[in-house]
Amino acid sequence: MAPPLAGRAENAIQARLLRLLRDEGSLSRVDITERLAVSRTTVAAEVVRLVELGLVRDAGPAASRGGRRSTMVDLSPDLRFVGVAVGATSLEVAVTDARLEVCDRRSEPVDVRRGPEEVLARVLQLTRELMDGQGGGRPSGVGVGVPGPVDFHAGVPVSPPIMPGWDAYPVRDAVVRELGCPVVLDNDVNLMALGEQQGGVARGARDFLFVKIGTGIGCGIVVEGDLYRGADGCAGDIGHIRVREDGPHCACGGKGCLEAVFGGAALARDALAAARSGRSPALADVLARTGTVTAADVGRAASAGDAVAMAMVQQGGRDLGVVLAHLVSFFNPRLLVIGGRVSQLGHALLAEVRGVVYRRSLPLATGNMPVVLSELGGLAGITGAVRLVSDQVFSPR
Amino acid sequence: MAPPLAGRAENAIQARLLRLLRDEGSLSRVDITERLAVSRTTVAAEVVRLVELGLVRDAGPAASRGGRRSTMVDLSPDLRFVGVAVGATSLEVAVTDARLEVCDRRSEPVDVRRGPEEVLARVLQLTRELMDGQGGGRPSGVGVGVPGPVDFHAGVPVSPPIMPGWDAYPVRDAVVRELGCPVVLDNDVNLMALGEQQGGVARGARDFLFVKIGTGIGCGIVVEGDLYRGADGCAGDIGHIRVREDGPHCACGGKGCLEAVFGGAALARDALAAARSGRSPALADVLARTGTVTAADVGRAASAGDAVAMAMVQQGGRDLGVVLAHLVSFFNPRLLVIGGRVSQLGHALLAEVRGVVYRRSLPLATGNMPVVLSELGGLAGITGAVRLVSDQVFSPR
Repeated sequence: MAPPLAGRAENAIQARLLRLLRDEGSLSRVDITERLAVSRTTVAAEVVRLVELGLVRDAGPAASRGGRRSTMVDLSPDLRFVGVAVGATSLEVAVTDARLEVCDRRSEPVDVRRGPEEVLARVLQLTRELMDGQGGGRPSGVGVGVPGPVDFHAGVPVSPPIMPGWDAYPVRDAVVRELGCPVVLDNDVNLMALGEQQGGVARGARDFLFVKIGTGIGCGIVVEGDLYRGADGCAGDIGHIRVREDGPHCACGGKGCLEAVFGGAALARDALAAARSGRSPALADVLARTGTVTAADVGRAASAGDAVAMAMVQQGGRDLGVVLAHLVSFFNPRLLVIGGRVSQLGHALLAEVRGVVYRRSLPLATGNMPVVLSELGGLAGITGAVRLVSDQVFSPR
Repeated sequence: MAPPLAGRAENAIQARLLRLLRDEGSLSRVDITERLAVSRTTVAAEVVRLVELGLVRDAGPAASRGGRRSTMVDLSPDLRFVGVAVGATSLEVAVTDARLEVCDRRSEPVDVRRGPEEVLARVLQLTRELMDGQGGGRPSGVGVGVPGPVDFHAGVPVSPPIMPGWDAYPVRDAVVRELGCPVVLDNDVNLMALGEQQGGVARGARDFLFVKIGTGIGCGIVVEGDLYRGADGCAGDIGHIRVREDGPHCACGGKGCLEAVFGGAALARDALAAARSGRSPALADVLARTGTVTAADVGRAASAGDAVAMAMVQQGGRDLGVVLAHLVSFFNPRLLVIGGRVSQLGHALLAEVRGVVYRRSLPLATGNMPVVLSELGGLAGITGAVRLVSDQVFSPR
């Protein structure tokens, strides 16, 4: 791969300047001086250094504000970040510019249970294809999300229940070795939370929860603007909270876990039963036509007025709502965001969740707390991945 | 009141130096230089300034480490902080030195429902008596805890359910006006959490939960060393999480709240019923002798082997354990501390809570998470109050 990797921030002022340009776009030197509250001389010197490092460029004269004409400064148009979202059954890779706008993306079905070597080979292949499409070169950083607990500092998955073969596999270091750039590995839900904060419905929110309902159920926790990971890195693991004493068995070995009653697999299981028994004509029809039923079919059948499908969405929303009501009383977030594939059940689900949360949490905690659907949908994880690795590249070493 | 109030820290180096002396005691200039990683000259200049401000003193020559003899530096022995714990039925005021060691304390029964004027008049009276006992003068800072939600930045209680008349009363500013020193107001549970971190079982813990079981039930949340208060300042309000769908009515208007099944008042209510019906011989005996039964009587009767009292402790521990298991899965704390008056039910309660939490939370989250009783007991709130106000005095303005 041809041109050399651009450098990283060398000091705190450079870091603040790079993040400012990332989040707000090109700025004049005068504006930068004001925003960073440092001297013109300091800004001039740091910009020279960042140009040398290949991280920023001069971008022509600024519109006059009177006095000496200022010049605009911008992030280098050559910088590229790569975001990777490994799911249970799909892989998505995107390349973005330094402002984290997606330039190009690829997705393909994958079975995460085939293990890290096979999945990471696909990640690297897609990354190389995407970078070639951008004119070659190495990415400035790669962020990778996986559907399971991660030791963030070590860059390895930790006993991920749905990822056999990945436990303690050095994912981060393997990608660093192949691509030779900074790499971060995190839990998919944490990255989705950061993604919504960077470019979605939680933009600017400092204390909020992002709840993912997909194959698994989990929660990303943002405290004072940063991810809270907990003492062992497994904060937010709400999928195994027991919501029904005599509920169905769960993959974790427990019974009646939230995930076992309302995760994607649980919904598909219940939908199949409703189709086979004929209780749901709409789901029976899907089964007859396609040979299977999925969580998404439940959503479609509910929207079309199927009573059994609607009852499944409502019961799931109530179970989820009870757990979230507890978390709202405990955590007093500014905002509750619901995302992940099952959240595509949409407004019927949201109405149910809101009803339970607002009824069962303290008025003081909910008076000013919107419960909203993810805005970025499938892009949340990718956006969070490039945000997290750009935070690292735009930090002093 | 005679001698002038000592000053406050003027810059970040002074603040770090003052906290170091508070938490570790007197240190030599050489040690301070190493610990703060600043130059000898800087330490010398800041110590001179802090002596002028009346905050520190030179404390004689240090033991020789070879080379030039260093001198010891200590916090001024004249500094006094005051901690105030307003409870539902009791008031406690203590005066401490700058290392937060209690010099003297007073407590008396009080009915918080008599309103802020009457209760604060007693706070001020006891404070003046205690300061007079220390040779007079003004305290360097006063920390006040109350049993209800607080807007920390405004220094006022917010809709406190068991404190009629206190809503939005300017408690902090009223005390500032009378005593003329920095004052902080916070929720009692937050202060108990800080107290355990400062001088109790959570010393040095950065991510932990402190659960208070008293007249009310609440939770103090410490994230990366600091209190987490939530978006509206009501984080940790776990007393109104519903634990039984058809449980007893609660003061909050809800039904089956944790507080309504296991708070101090709930236990006393159930104990009275058990005594009157004769189901519990031990509690019936207490009722006959004293005319009443309390939560503490339940603990004593359970310890003495009364089956009904033991069942009450076990059921309460299970209800509490279910809520805490959810919070542990969500928050992944390093440590869970249980305090407050009802926690004096002791090890039978602790065994029950541990059983439920360890059984129902993720192994990853509990493998390394002790569940322990408060070490400071009644002193936790006072210790947290002086810690919090000393943090403020030992900060740059």
